Amino acid sequence: MSQLKGACIIGQSGGPTSVINASAYGAIKTALENDSITRVLGALNGIKGVLDDNLIDMGKEDPAELALMKHTPSSALGSCRYKLKSPEEDETDYKRILEIFKKYDVRYFFYNGGNDSMDTCNKISKFMLKNGYECRVMGIPKTIDNDLAGTDHCPGYASAAKYIATSLMEIYHDARVYDTGMITVVEIMGRNAGWLTASAALASYKGNGPDLIYLPEVDFDLDAFMAKVQDIYNKNGKCIVAVSEGIKDKNGKYISEYGADLANSKDSFGHAQLGGLASFLANEIKKKTGAKVRGIELSLLQRCAAHCASKTDIEESFAAGKAAVEYAVAGTTDKMVGFERTTENGKYKCNIKLFDLTVVANTEKKVPLEWLNETKDGLNEKFIEYALPLIQGETDLCKEDGLPRFVRLKKVKA
Amino acid sequence: MSQLKGACIIGQSGGPTSVINASAYGAIKTALENDSITRVLGALNGIKGVLDDNLIDMGKEDPAELALMKHTPSSALGSCRYKLKSPEEDETDYKRILEIFKKYDVRYFFYNGGNDSMDTCNKISKFMLKNGYECRVMGIPKTIDNDLAGTDHCPGYASAAKYIATSLMEIYHDARVYDTGMITVVEIMGRNAGWLTASAALASYKGNGPDLIYLPEVDFDLDAFMAKVQDIYNKNGKCIVAVSEGIKDKNGKYISEYGADLANSKDSFGHAQLGGLASFLANEIKKKTGAKVRGIELSLLQRCAAHCASKTDIEESFAAGKAAVEYAVAGTTDKMVGFERTTENGKYKCNIKLFDLTVVANTEKKVPLEWLNETKDGLNEKFIEYALPLIQGETDLCKEDGLPRFVRLKKVKA
Repeated sequence: MSQLKGACIIGQSGGPTSVINASAYGAIKTALENDSITRVLGALNGIKGVLDDNLIDMGKEDPAELALMKHTPSSALGSCRYKLKSPEEDETDYKRILEIFKKYDVRYFFYNGGNDSMDTCNKISKFMLKNGYECRVMGIPKTIDNDLAGTDHCPGYASAAKYIATSLMEIYHDARVYDTGMITVVEIMGRNAGWLTASAALASYKGNGPDLIYLPEVDFDLDAFMAKVQDIYNKNGKCIVAVSEGIKDKNGKYISEYGADLANSKDSFGHAQLGGLASFLANEIKKKTGAKVRGIELSLLQRCAAHCASKTDIEESFAAGKAAVEYAVAGTTDKMVGFERTTENGKYKCNIKLFDLTVVANTEKKVPLEWLNETKDGLNEKFIEYALPLIQGETDLCKEDGLPRFVRLKKVKA
Repeated sequence: MSQLKGACIIGQSGGPTSVINASAYGAIKTALENDSITRVLGALNGIKGVLDDNLIDMGKEDPAELALMKHTPSSALGSCRYKLKSPEEDETDYKRILEIFKKYDVRYFFYNGGNDSMDTCNKISKFMLKNGYECRVMGIPKTIDNDLAGTDHCPGYASAAKYIATSLMEIYHDARVYDTGMITVVEIMGRNAGWLTASAALASYKGNGPDLIYLPEVDFDLDAFMAKVQDIYNKNGKCIVAVSEGIKDKNGKYISEYGADLANSKDSFGHAQLGGLASFLANEIKKKTGAKVRGIELSLLQRCAAHCASKTDIEESFAAGKAAVEYAVAGTTDKMVGFERTTENGKYKCNIKLFDLTVVANTEKKVPLEWLNETKDGLNEKFIEYALPLIQGETDLCKEDGLPRFVRLKKVKA
């Protein structure tokens, strides 16, 4: 493959994670140091930054400041949820992207995101090829949901998992401090795949976790759930439950909609929005058991708690961004950088592996059912073996006045 | 003061904090090493452990394991919310406590808790004195609410404040990742005093915090609030609000009750329990602005997130427990150990100071109104100067498999 010289654009897309910036920084730093790449541009708010010619010059940032990206949560370049139409339907956006690529002599495009972002990469890559514009396109994955196909795991998942397991261990201690009864329901993100909720099992593995864990991979039966909670509560006086926001009944209806229905049947004040799944379940349990019940929604914290990120996740995320640039410069295009798990001297090791964008963009990886326990309300040792290596190591997030010192980019327009 | 030899009892009471065990450990360790104290007993679930003769022998614990208490959240000995009647009303409990004290030759009683615990200390101390039983009683404060009178601040507050400020900085990054509008409402604990909610201002001081902060010290006007949120949202496209769970309108009615009223007026399904203040406000804002709004309740996490505890808080909490034992052995009784702030070479320094139990038990310390900004929706530099030194330093919480290794006591019955 001949050397391709030109500028690169790096963009970020989709929901935040604690380490998406570690990946972006891995790509930016490597690109800045690479001779084939003449200029490193950041697209503000993902592909919209390209469409709007809203690009910043990463070379104008102070290197020491830029390095803080590695430990800064959310997307430092801003994100978007803009979905490109297929070029068969409408070529406008693609033509505009090509125009911008030509304007800045962009020969490398790195897109840092989830499923949709890989789809965007894929479409752009194919359009450039069809139009004879030489450009190498690489996807750098991120998602707390861990649902991308092919790769052993996704950058971002482990840090969220570490935060969830840590928080559940702490909630466990809090929720049993009194000698009176207490039931706690913790709602965890993950609409279709139960990876995040499953990470609560790491707390249980440490003896400080939930009694019951419900993933969206298994049909949820409210009556059976109630009976189990009641039973554990009767035995222990305490019960902690972790539920995925995405649990559904056997007819495919979200349990979170039950509460909305209940409210909607009675009024039109929009009460459906009051409280989520945790509130609904807590309320149902309270009605049934009379116990003191608390519903907790981990909400945004689980995807942005950089202070509790996994060092393994940070380093792997950085490595993914770095590899994307190195592979592209070496001639690769149209691939997503992912991970392959191996062992070295009996220890977990993570290797970079490339995946075809088409496959990644259209598949969703769920928790294997054989990793659940027999009663489908917990995880077995296969999940623990999978997840535990990923959450190892602590962040070395820089602190200032006892608080995180997150990156402050100058964002000099290109 | 003559030397008093005998056993001691240490009990914990009230709601959890991240560092109440650091105080208990300070007392236990110091007592175990002191010659005047013949045996160190832990009361399980506070004063109820004394009444039920449910005591454990702290000398039977492995010292290395015991040391993990310093970084374990919640009360390792268990807590209670049992309030002793006044002895004038009913002496039964006091007689029983005296009986247990005599049974184990208890000459030192250390009680680790908030206002009510100091009240318990006070009553027990007076009863023992009246009945001619020589016993030294010391209160060791803890409360995330920071509302105890006299002391400059309370053990437990700073760690909660550090967690709140850190989380808000992270939420700040998450909540502005898209180029679309977003309003976020974060509900923080503190029913009567706004110290915890005020700590959100530390995030704002770092440039990554809420635009508006509402404390229970100031009457809350829903209309004025809506107008301010709308205004900031119109200007910036984003708005982050931190509200205390205890905000009230000018008639003294909790704003959290507004949502309950709305629900109750329409049905009898107990919707009042669905969602809290954050949900209610988020919903109202959504109706008014049409913006994307998210309500977040920090819930239990803010009082048990030991992984994000302040080292200053941990060390001071330990010192408070240690001092309680040392002062008691030296002859002091009927006091609460508290803190006095001084400076040494221009730097924050915290000295131990003793406070009269009667004063502490019956006063509630609120955020001074002169520490609020002019529009009463934020804090000024006086609060920052007060709070910032308290959150300095990171916990050296022991980790195992990437997760906290919290204490596991044997709890050998005395």
